[in-house]
Amino acid sequence: MKSNAALSSMGKRSEAPPISWLMQLALSRPKLISLAAGFTDNQSLPVTEVRELIDEILSSPETGQPALQYGTTAGDPELRQYTAQDLQSFDTGESARGKLHPVYSPDNVLITNGSQQLLYMITEAVCDEGDIVLVEDPTYFVYLGIAQSRALQCRGIRLEEDGIDLSHLEKVLDELKRSGELPRVKMLYLVSYFQNPSGVTTSFEKKAGALKLLRRYEKFAGHPIYLLEDAAYRELRFAGESIPSALAIKGCADRVLYAGTYSKPFATGARVGFGILPEPLFTVITRIKGNHDFGTSNLLQQLLKRAITTSRYENHVADLQLRYGCKARVMVEALQTHFPKNANWLHPKGGLYVWVKLPKHLATGPKSKFFKAALENDVLYVPGELCYADDPTRPKPNHEMRLSFAGATEKNIGLGIERLGKVLKELR
Amino acid sequence: MKSNAALSSMGKRSEAPPISWLMQLALSRPKLISLAAGFTDNQSLPVTEVRELIDEILSSPETGQPALQYGTTAGDPELRQYTAQDLQSFDTGESARGKLHPVYSPDNVLITNGSQQLLYMITEAVCDEGDIVLVEDPTYFVYLGIAQSRALQCRGIRLEEDGIDLSHLEKVLDELKRSGELPRVKMLYLVSYFQNPSGVTTSFEKKAGALKLLRRYEKFAGHPIYLLEDAAYRELRFAGESIPSALAIKGCADRVLYAGTYSKPFATGARVGFGILPEPLFTVITRIKGNHDFGTSNLLQQLLKRAITTSRYENHVADLQLRYGCKARVMVEALQTHFPKNANWLHPKGGLYVWVKLPKHLATGPKSKFFKAALENDVLYVPGELCYADDPTRPKPNHEMRLSFAGATEKNIGLGIERLGKVLKELR
Repeated sequence: MKSNAALSSMGKRSEAPPISWLMQLALSRPKLISLAAGFTDNQSLPVTEVRELIDEILSSPETGQPALQYGTTAGDPELRQYTAQDLQSFDTGESARGKLHPVYSPDNVLITNGSQQLLYMITEAVCDEGDIVLVEDPTYFVYLGIAQSRALQCRGIRLEEDGIDLSHLEKVLDELKRSGELPRVKMLYLVSYFQNPSGVTTSFEKKAGALKLLRRYEKFAGHPIYLLEDAAYRELRFAGESIPSALAIKGCADRVLYAGTYSKPFATGARVGFGILPEPLFTVITRIKGNHDFGTSNLLQQLLKRAITTSRYENHVADLQLRYGCKARVMVEALQTHFPKNANWLHPKGGLYVWVKLPKHLATGPKSKFFKAALENDVLYVPGELCYADDPTRPKPNHEMRLSFAGATEKNIGLGIERLGKVLKELR
Repeated sequence: MKSNAALSSMGKRSEAPPISWLMQLALSRPKLISLAAGFTDNQSLPVTEVRELIDEILSSPETGQPALQYGTTAGDPELRQYTAQDLQSFDTGESARGKLHPVYSPDNVLITNGSQQLLYMITEAVCDEGDIVLVEDPTYFVYLGIAQSRALQCRGIRLEEDGIDLSHLEKVLDELKRSGELPRVKMLYLVSYFQNPSGVTTSFEKKAGALKLLRRYEKFAGHPIYLLEDAAYRELRFAGESIPSALAIKGCADRVLYAGTYSKPFATGARVGFGILPEPLFTVITRIKGNHDFGTSNLLQQLLKRAITTSRYENHVADLQLRYGCKARVMVEALQTHFPKNANWLHPKGGLYVWVKLPKHLATGPKSKFFKAALENDVLYVPGELCYADDPTRPKPNHEMRLSFAGATEKNIGLGIERLGKVLKELR
């Protein structure tokens, strides 16, 4: 009897995420400089702040007991309220205490175990096996893991410096219409701020343009096609203008699924994410969360709530922005010094990553000479091809890499890039 | 265009859990005495202990930074080690520091967001739509929610005072064999200690007998049939003998999926559960968890780990056992005083619940006279019928109720039972 014979089709299908293999590599080489992990900076973690916050929460039974008790599935009502207010003020630039636009109703805010859980549950609620999700090309590889596990198809939409190429989106939608596959298209997934992996931020105009196109093709799909806006890196902005989310596009909020997180801007060990979801999705996804875990840890929710109300959250985010801004500059300067002239990258304005494009003949994949030589020199990066969906309509680009400036020290960022540059020279 | 037209079949199907409706009722009546909720006792929550523990963890960057950083998907290695050791010593009665039997390998321990998340992921990994899970009759209603949402069939196995009726299990397996449905049977789900809702504990002999039966029918199923042992209430024992888990049954551990939790015995607001899973399930479910959230909050894991290593966890569990033992006695004594002679219940030896069987003509369902009259008298209980699977082979019993002695004060337990008794007298 085969030992995997009792598995579900999903159980049989689910592959190991590429990141676990990269993490194993990192663990097996203690001297490795990892420019791969999307970890936040250890030195920057708000140890003192969290210590004070939890001490305050647990200093009296009135606030202490509720923090250690079950909450409700949708999340702490006050945290949902603050989340809605903050989103409205991010989008409109105005302080929103008291008066909230219906789009930012706390009743539509769901608190989750990081935004990852929300991405998972949205996909459960919307996609059946074989359904199609449109993704950026490249995109967040853990989302590709969800799609692989759940037998979804992904189609990549070309990425430009200000977000997806709308004419390519239209072309893909049109092809899917002609092939009769449009009824399978459920969502367009955009990591809209300082994208993982490319660092690209989608302009407001492009979000509006994308929603307009989705709306136009809906009637051929026979159902809503949602824009899933993953704003995980939104608050980690150290340069450039603030851009409103797709929620701010007039008359479109019933098609926008907004996913955000408090973990990355504060403490990744305290996983609290959130979303704003239109009906019927809010109701359905809250039910699904009831089955997953009937609610995110109340202690973590109270921690984040108090961090927000005491401004420690806001202050910490400001510190992080400065810190990551410096580290990004160190990385870009090292790239300018040590990388060949025919390599390209975008100077990041936020987030955790620099996306480097090498000349097309220089493969970066896990089996490439370059990856192996980098590893022998104790430097790890994320091969670009891991960030591309299995889209049958194009080959996967394999000459790019994602470099994270988040986890390593400034010294190691410089050293890591120097070594990569040396390896590149040797390979030429 | 129908607004739910974009939902997946699971999204369309998922129903609101009955508990959310009961919680709404509770919220709308502030004077209500809720004997419904499985909340732990507010007064018992370890506010001081958690405050000290987190203060200790965050008092130095060496322990503080890792607690606020991402961990690995499977969980903190030391917490997995302690979990394995504790399980072995619960099962064998011997301290297990250092030498672990392969069944209790830390490599097979997965840390989760409460045991609920593990139940969900096990079901994802093992069951396709239409598959059959054998459950106790009655069973944990949130598990029934998972089954409903995922379009599984449940078959109820009669419950006796020491666990399921093995002859009924055999009869059901035999019927499923004859109807050709055995290939759809994937698991037997047992809440094996102080069961929610009945309070029943499954004897070691019955676990062994159940595994033997499952093994016998496997060859007709064509795949392993697992025993999913949900031991959520195991540590909340205040009377009776300690009973080993099904992991201790020789030669059977490759068929046992063990789910436990640190939340209920310590702090429900700090959700940390765990499981021991044989291969290939450990690998598959860890991959699925990678897609759900790539790991449970490290802060909560460090909290529980330190609670265990400093014996605060153990001491708190001992306090809880005493406390719940007293409250259970208060409830049982009130039942003896106020309930009619033809009502029956099991005196609980642990857990949070007393399961009361009324005479068959006395309906307890949400639309019954009794439920409504109880509510008018400001007392809420869980109607027994919510704890029964939709099993087409028998009607749902509707004259039982689950009473929780966990959340209410001793005074309110007495008062609540007195009021229920009065209502019963008036209905006769």
